[in-house]
Amino acid sequence: VTTEDALYASAPALRSLAADVLHGWGMPLDRATESAALIVESDLRGVDSHGISMLPQYERLVAEGRVDVGAAPEVVSSSDSGCLIDAHDSFGHLAMKWAMDAAVERATAHGVAAVGVRRSHHFGAAGIYATMASDRGMIGLVTTTTRTRAVVPTRGTQALLGTNPMAFAAPTDDPERPFLLDMSTSTVAVNKVKTYDHRGLVIPEGWVVDDAGHQLTDHAIAHRQVRAQAGGGLTPLGGAEATAGYKGYGLSVMVQILAGALTGSTFAPHRSPSQHHDDIGHFCLVIDPGAFGSPEVFLESVAQVVTSLRQQQPAVPGLPVLVAGDPEWAARRRREREGVPLSRVLARMLTDLAHRSGVDALTLADHPLDQPYAETEEDR
Amino acid sequence: VTTEDALYASAPALRSLAADVLHGWGMPLDRATESAALIVESDLRGVDSHGISMLPQYERLVAEGRVDVGAAPEVVSSSDSGCLIDAHDSFGHLAMKWAMDAAVERATAHGVAAVGVRRSHHFGAAGIYATMASDRGMIGLVTTTTRTRAVVPTRGTQALLGTNPMAFAAPTDDPERPFLLDMSTSTVAVNKVKTYDHRGLVIPEGWVVDDAGHQLTDHAIAHRQVRAQAGGGLTPLGGAEATAGYKGYGLSVMVQILAGALTGSTFAPHRSPSQHHDDIGHFCLVIDPGAFGSPEVFLESVAQVVTSLRQQQPAVPGLPVLVAGDPEWAARRRREREGVPLSRVLARMLTDLAHRSGVDALTLADHPLDQPYAETEEDR
Repeated sequence: VTTEDALYASAPALRSLAADVLHGWGMPLDRATESAALIVESDLRGVDSHGISMLPQYERLVAEGRVDVGAAPEVVSSSDSGCLIDAHDSFGHLAMKWAMDAAVERATAHGVAAVGVRRSHHFGAAGIYATMASDRGMIGLVTTTTRTRAVVPTRGTQALLGTNPMAFAAPTDDPERPFLLDMSTSTVAVNKVKTYDHRGLVIPEGWVVDDAGHQLTDHAIAHRQVRAQAGGGLTPLGGAEATAGYKGYGLSVMVQILAGALTGSTFAPHRSPSQHHDDIGHFCLVIDPGAFGSPEVFLESVAQVVTSLRQQQPAVPGLPVLVAGDPEWAARRRREREGVPLSRVLARMLTDLAHRSGVDALTLADHPLDQPYAETEEDR
Repeated sequence: VTTEDALYASAPALRSLAADVLHGWGMPLDRATESAALIVESDLRGVDSHGISMLPQYERLVAEGRVDVGAAPEVVSSSDSGCLIDAHDSFGHLAMKWAMDAAVERATAHGVAAVGVRRSHHFGAAGIYATMASDRGMIGLVTTTTRTRAVVPTRGTQALLGTNPMAFAAPTDDPERPFLLDMSTSTVAVNKVKTYDHRGLVIPEGWVVDDAGHQLTDHAIAHRQVRAQAGGGLTPLGGAEATAGYKGYGLSVMVQILAGALTGSTFAPHRSPSQHHDDIGHFCLVIDPGAFGSPEVFLESVAQVVTSLRQQQPAVPGLPVLVAGDPEWAARRRREREGVPLSRVLARMLTDLAHRSGVDALTLADHPLDQPYAETEEDR
């Protein structure tokens, strides 16, 4: 979204739209409201690809009967330090929030806890859930499998793995700026290749390979290759074998083992054509630093690390050394005041969606709102 | 080590040397024997940089009084699902083994457990410990801080982070071939740059940057830059910002938080010059898949993933798609029979070390031993 073209919507307006739409599809109102807040938190943090822009895709999945929008997640087994949740083919947002709540509760009692979710679906940005731990002074790790085969294993020819993201959050001395690593285990996301194609930009070497393992830099060819879900696709983090792409490939399999195998969810390439639901799996781990020593000393220690990094002299003046999460927190501060910028294409899609769903259209402005926006506790 | 130049030593001979040397420095015999087995396991797996080749460095650290070779690790706090071990400035091998033992025991009872180690030192290869979990049908994650500042944060100019490795192991249907990801969070290790320099090879772009963030490809300049521990150094996994080096940078900080901040260990850049010991921290996490569902289904599920990957048609015929751990297990099968190949330089260093330590010299052969080698349970 370039600033000149953007239309702006307030976070409450986006939450209202998302809640109304989800409720209209058959989700009980309380769960729709809670899911909407989780969706729009992505937009506030600047993770545009995982927030409100997903609604049109969600609509298609619901129409195809691949998501049971009214189903409630259920705890199917539970122990001192963990549990397993069956999302019953619902969207993943609420199931994952429940998973984090369960993990935080058990970590409070036992120091560490792990929770899995199976038969779930897209849950937005993994980082949204990881910071539910850091907001409570704990360490959170979140992983998930993904629907789409996009990533080619090192030395391979076919996209067999998903972008299999992982998020890791830890509290710092600044409650508004926890450490938050939220990353796919591929070099870039599918959407980034799409954006480059739409803008006609050269694809940097190391993002996309064809089915012979050759680097693709032509935006149209690279985008087509990634979309095809057949030969070629995205490289794992690290890119080529010479630059240690096998490490990103290994991380991707690690995510598949934690979020997929451990929860009993399907490995995408083995999903049968007759399988109606995607059966996405999620995993989270929560650690209470208080179980290892003084929570205050821990916070100071993390703060010392991130401060040292931020204070380092940058290679290019004006491009400061950042710490994971800094871009999200900067976006959040800005967007809470200015509203969330939407491309005109997305704004139109959301207007049409509201119309089809028979709910109130989104209020849009053609300039930043810059309104004094007092967010309440409940908005979080 | 090129095969033509190598000298070969059997694993039992290497263990014997390492145990005798450690014992000679003041480590009680039982702990020296156990530590030696952990050291030589790296060599068997082909991780030459982290095994017997460390002994000369260990000797220097002991001589400088930076390692208390006789100290025994001690559990300083303990709970249902975790504990904290103080290694009392001893080498890390035994402390980390005790940590894994404690984590496996607690995970057996509670499904998941996390253990930290502080005031420790080099422990060899992280993967050695991660597979202690997979050998018992569990998932193991191991991280450690490192002594040397080697990695430049994205956009930065100074090496502030260590190579901060992490290892992740999970059992498969083949007990001899668990999934084992054992990686530094940098693109490559310091030793790899050294090897390229010694061989006069061009350094691939994306490995090393100078203090202005520019890629270095000249082997001598790159090696000097990495050794300097001042401006410039290794890139984090992903390389440049355009190829998502900020993800590897984030992973490096994640490791620092788990193994450093959580255990109360020192962040290397904040180590005071007067601090005599390095105060390395380790962290491990163990998850029992049986706490989430059927262990058999889990094994099948992991096996399905790794088999699909291995069966994929490779981009280059003869270079098969591997799964993390495959190179280690291939090396292990070969070296159990042929012995461990040592460069003549290293063989000489070990001979000198044995002489200085007053212990029996290593028996060396100038060809693969190819002896029927029956490893006993105790050797593992």
